[in-house]
Amino acid sequence: MAARGKGAARAAGEFELIDTLFRPLAATTPAALGLGDDAAVFTPPPGRDLVFTKDAMVEGVHFLTSDDPADIAKKLLRVNLSDLAAMGASPCGYLLATFWPEQIGEDWIARFAAGLAEDQQRFGIGLFGGDTVRTPGPLSLSLTAIGEVATGQALRRNGAREGDLLVVSGSIGDAALGLQVLKGTLTDLGEVESVYLTLRYHAPTPRLALAPHLPGIATSCIDISDGLVADVGHIATESGLAAEISWPAVPLSDAARAALARDESLRAVLLTGGDDYELAFTLAPERAEALKLISAAANVPLAVIGKMTRGQGVTVRDGDGSELTFASGGWRHF
Amino acid sequence: MAARGKGAARAAGEFELIDTLFRPLAATTPAALGLGDDAAVFTPPPGRDLVFTKDAMVEGVHFLTSDDPADIAKKLLRVNLSDLAAMGASPCGYLLATFWPEQIGEDWIARFAAGLAEDQQRFGIGLFGGDTVRTPGPLSLSLTAIGEVATGQALRRNGAREGDLLVVSGSIGDAALGLQVLKGTLTDLGEVESVYLTLRYHAPTPRLALAPHLPGIATSCIDISDGLVADVGHIATESGLAAEISWPAVPLSDAARAALARDESLRAVLLTGGDDYELAFTLAPERAEALKLISAAANVPLAVIGKMTRGQGVTVRDGDGSELTFASGGWRHF
Repeated sequence: MAARGKGAARAAGEFELIDTLFRPLAATTPAALGLGDDAAVFTPPPGRDLVFTKDAMVEGVHFLTSDDPADIAKKLLRVNLSDLAAMGASPCGYLLATFWPEQIGEDWIARFAAGLAEDQQRFGIGLFGGDTVRTPGPLSLSLTAIGEVATGQALRRNGAREGDLLVVSGSIGDAALGLQVLKGTLTDLGEVESVYLTLRYHAPTPRLALAPHLPGIATSCIDISDGLVADVGHIATESGLAAEISWPAVPLSDAARAALARDESLRAVLLTGGDDYELAFTLAPERAEALKLISAAANVPLAVIGKMTRGQGVTVRDGDGSELTFASGGWRHF
Repeated sequence: MAARGKGAARAAGEFELIDTLFRPLAATTPAALGLGDDAAVFTPPPGRDLVFTKDAMVEGVHFLTSDDPADIAKKLLRVNLSDLAAMGASPCGYLLATFWPEQIGEDWIARFAAGLAEDQQRFGIGLFGGDTVRTPGPLSLSLTAIGEVATGQALRRNGAREGDLLVVSGSIGDAALGLQVLKGTLTDLGEVESVYLTLRYHAPTPRLALAPHLPGIATSCIDISDGLVADVGHIATESGLAAEISWPAVPLSDAARAALARDESLRAVLLTGGDDYELAFTLAPERAEALKLISAAANVPLAVIGKMTRGQGVTVRDGDGSELTFASGGWRHF
């Protein structure tokens, strides 16, 4: 882990603090070489492909200065781990680049590192290395996660076939409602519901428990970061197909149902809001029996919400077969 | 490659531009999956360890807004490739996170991508993936480079042994002088010398040609980013030894010699300035004969500049054996 500050004034000892806080994160990761070298060295497990993903976050854009630093750390790590899960991969380690503004305090950094430490233990992953620099701008972060999957078995977006069932994990739309709670535009829920929804926004659960069961069974997979409709749309587009979603089949949490009961217009938020980090995947209808076993083995609820059809685009239908339309198609993405 | 802009206003099509500019960088890299998925998938070559490094750069800290965007791109890529070379590794690919300020223009980004394209071809490397976000702050960049080396053969800083010779590649101190030229504090050189030195600062040559020849022969290795004295100090510290450098043996370019002839005080700059990205490595004296062969095979000049001894710290001696001292020990580093 290199601390570069060339051209920038920096106080003696300022990076030693960061070193002290981050070095323990690499303690259980042999590849990190104790962060004492120019780079990490990792011996790939035989018969496995490696999966690489990189996500960046900026204060004021992707998180608020007032957010708990541990939550910011967890979200950064988890959105990357979710990308690994979407490929059917299991995590190996990660590299972290931190851009610290001058005014950042020791307490803040310590709490950020504590959040990483907690999630490292939860997800069985360790720090490989990274870089620490100063910025005159907002606090910025970039994380590269490394995962592994059986050779040739990584899940893609482009493998869905006509007639495949469309399946999602967990519940849909909670994070988008959580963001509304945080913004103060969704206020009439009970405390339990509000806390649940904000937690789903701040600390999404990457579906790493589910991921290893999907290669060889799922034909395509994506994590829902842009919103259900948009991300299912990515599978459809990349697979050269259309997707049909049945609104009554979309799994909702109790909190989301409570919110929806008070304001029916939230349906569009649930279907097009982002940040859930659930998995959406497709599989052949004759493999549907496997879903119960996978759900039980991973301890993750799974729901069939629709199917892949000839054509293009995503259609959402209500229980009576009528088509639902939305002002926004979810976040745009490439 | 994901373009995330949640919470940030963004104009339609703005990321399509970036997509158009960056997608060709992944065209020759099968691992990138055309940037159409959540992550890259890479099949590690059998019998090889993978090497990971990550460096970050910030406008106004590590580069100037007025710098050529192609130069910024090259420097970002090359400092990472230099870290791979320091481990004796050859490059496989890289991931890139870009934090774009609102005011950045299409021309700027196009020229940045062109710089990457040029160096990709030069160094035989391709884009694996990454992330593109907006920032209200300065342009910021983070790059993760992935390399490969024979299993168990990666070079470390901690393997030097007492009596080992200390060797450096190329010439030392050019980049630090180049920075002085750019800052206007070194003005009395000819145009050829000035251009040469600034090029050495803007576009250092990662010693990838040398790297594959060193595993099995060098006992330790580092790239000179913090300055010769500081980086040799890292080898000494990590190996539990001291290092002695002979000033007359330190290889200098003609331009550096010309500058030194006019101002003897530049000696300290040459010895402690950073950013050369040459390699410093150690090897047993009985292996010294191999240096000529390696130098010829890699087409990179090599010079023995000192040796590793019992004790700690780095001593630089003049031709008469007297010890040279410096106000600054080079950039501090962990």
